[in-house]
Amino acid sequence: MAKDDAIAKLQQRIDKLEHELGIQQDIHAIRRLQYAYGYFIDKSQYNECVDLFAEDAEVWFLGGIYKNKAGIRRLYIERFRKNFTENHNGPRYGWLLDHPQMQMIIDVAADRKTAEARGRSMMQAGTHETAKIKQRQWWEGGIYENRYVRDKGVWKFKRLGYFPFWHGSFAEGWGKTPIDFIPMPKTCYPEDPLGPDQLIEPPPRLWPATDVVPFHFSHPVTGKPIKVDNSRAREGFESEK
Amino acid sequence: MAKDDAIAKLQQRIDKLEHELGIQQDIHAIRRLQYAYGYFIDKSQYNECVDLFAEDAEVWFLGGIYKNKAGIRRLYIERFRKNFTENHNGPRYGWLLDHPQMQMIIDVAADRKTAEARGRSMMQAGTHETAKIKQRQWWEGGIYENRYVRDKGVWKFKRLGYFPFWHGSFAEGWGKTPIDFIPMPKTCYPEDPLGPDQLIEPPPRLWPATDVVPFHFSHPVTGKPIKVDNSRAREGFESEK
Amino acid sequence: MAKDDAIAKLQQRIDKLEHELGIQQDIHAIRRLQYAYGYFIDKSQYNECVDLFAEDAEVWFLGGIYKNKAGIRRLYIERFRKNFTENHNGPRYGWLLDHPQMQMIIDVAADRKTAEARGRSMMQAGTHETAKIKQRQWWEGGIYENRYVRDKGVWKFKRLGYFPFWHGSFAEGWGKTPIDFIPMPKTCYPEDPLGPDQLIEPPPRLWPATDVVPFHFSHPVTGKPIKVDNSRAREGFESEK
Repeated sequence: MAKDDAIAKLQQRIDKLEHELGIQQDIHAIRRLQYAYGYFIDKSQYNECVDLFAEDAEVWFLGGIYKNKAGIRRLYIERFRKNFTENHNGPRYGWLLDHPQMQMIIDVAADRKTAEARGRSMMQAGTHETAKIKQRQWWEGGIYENRYVRDKGVWKFKRLGYFPFWHGSFAEGWGKTPIDFIPMPKTCYPEDPLGPDQLIEPPPRLWPATDVVPFHFSHPVTGKPIKVDNSRAREGFESEK
Repeated sequence: MAKDDAIAKLQQRIDKLEHELGIQQDIHAIRRLQYAYGYFIDKSQYNECVDLFAEDAEVWFLGGIYKNKAGIRRLYIERFRKNFTENHNGPRYGWLLDHPQMQMIIDVAADRKTAEARGRSMMQAGTHETAKIKQRQWWEGGIYENRYVRDKGVWKFKRLGYFPFWHGSFAEGWGKTPIDFIPMPKTCYPEDPLGPDQLIEPPPRLWPATDVVPFHFSHPVTGKPIKVDNSRAREGFESEK
Repeated sequence: MAKDDAIAKLQQRIDKLEHELGIQQDIHAIRRLQYAYGYFIDKSQYNECVDLFAEDAEVWFLGGIYKNKAGIRRLYIERFRKNFTENHNGPRYGWLLDHPQMQMIIDVAADRKTAEARGRSMMQAGTHETAKIKQRQWWEGGIYENRYVRDKGVWKFKRLGYFPFWHGSFAEGWGKTPIDFIPMPKTCYPEDPLGPDQLIEPPPRLWPATDVVPFHFSHPVTGKPIKVDNSRAREGFESEK
């Protein structure tokens, strides 16, 4: 009996170890997924990007929500691939689109079926003067708030939420970014054949707005939800007065 | 007896597994803490920053040491919050202060009570031309050598040591940074009501000085302490000849 | 008998846990090694860099392969240390060479003897106007595809493969990088006393070429090898038509 008890206790400890080591392995797998996304998007490997998503995933991008594989293909294949690389699934001469992936806070649900992560990029993008592409050169900073799902042991994107924060031309920087530099979409698919399935409401605004993207996690020390005070984040816009 | 021995051996292996998995979980928790700090400081969430510190923690910043929660509040709340965001705990329109957190080497003590980490940031900071703030725009690189403490299972900062290395204006870069671009403090609190509790001696010097911040860790392969040779790091300064 | 079986099953689970936790510890150790390399190279600590390599390691750098400790010393000590820091093993006043290490995808072999990683850097480099060094100031992005070996429990570099992608002067950026900005080596050691032991064939080309560095890993979701289509990566070069 004493031995049975001892064995049962060891089993419980091993059960817990397996579960908790599994979470560390999940964190590694999710970091790997996100980082692979970064390498693929750097080089316009759009097919490889699309394959990272679950069937019912979403992409949140610049005011629009692109739903399911159909919507995600519309964004990456119909829009990005056509616009950026003349529908070529790979990099084009003289076209830079580096998306370093950084600072991921990855949180796996206790049941190990889903996860969330906050991350960021600081991009270097644009053209070389010898490329037959409209000349431009910019820096860009943005935040990700992403969700993941584990499907038959494989982690996939459930939501890629990219929230660009600031853009700055190489010549002038973030000091002189035009207001509403990139217009947010106003029309959905199918009315706009490349549009999102849904608009984000209220629409985000770009820098010099400084709104905080809500955090998926609680404060690491206090454990309290992280309140966000955006009351001064848009005060310089005439249109919001 | 044989079974008792077998069970005892399994117990030992499980003890070791629990301890070593705990260290991996600590590493994850410390990365999470540091990265959360980065997201908070990006957006002037100074209250949330202060809550990441232990009561008896320190901040080393630009030649000064700010001690205990009182000193840390003086720095983040009385100084940064007043100077940067007009005492608002959150982001201000047209004020950029991005602090990407990168390259953390995290080492947890064998007893899992304390930890150290080296990390870095490469900042993008400054104002938008439409913000009613003194116009400036700069890049900045710096090193962290931080210490952490585990308090009732929760990791907190014990020392945040940020050692800015170089600053460069967006227009001119690190090639033309003025010498002693940011003056080091000379006076402590309470004589200077916003001053540090103690001065770092000898005071650090900024780029074009290139002093190496001492490493908390030994060489990963040889295991020997990492010697730092700063004999040529300041040789261009008239004042040090 | 039932107890023997129960104990044997626990042993198997513990064996597996020890192995899999070991892999997570390996990942941590390899990240630590790579990140330490970054801190050392930042500050021209070339001796410390060389000590990170296995005896039979290789460095792939700008079209050349430097073999074994002898070749690696030639590159780091004879070439970099002499050229960059006047043969001083440490940083020189007014000489910036920051190599932030980012986005590591680390994969450890099942036997835990070897590992591979993809990573990247985005450098800030050049001189301060008061340094007595040829004035220059540049940004640089590049990819690592590295291999590691575990030798008596210690992870070391087996291959450091750094593939610079783009360079941009601080003044003009990646828009105006001269074609073949850094010439690839044409001559090996000992004919060229600082040359590589072998040339990479075919030689890599720098930006505005956009060739994808092959991936050591399979697609994280499909599990298929990642095909790389470089058919348009050099189409703007007259010399490749």
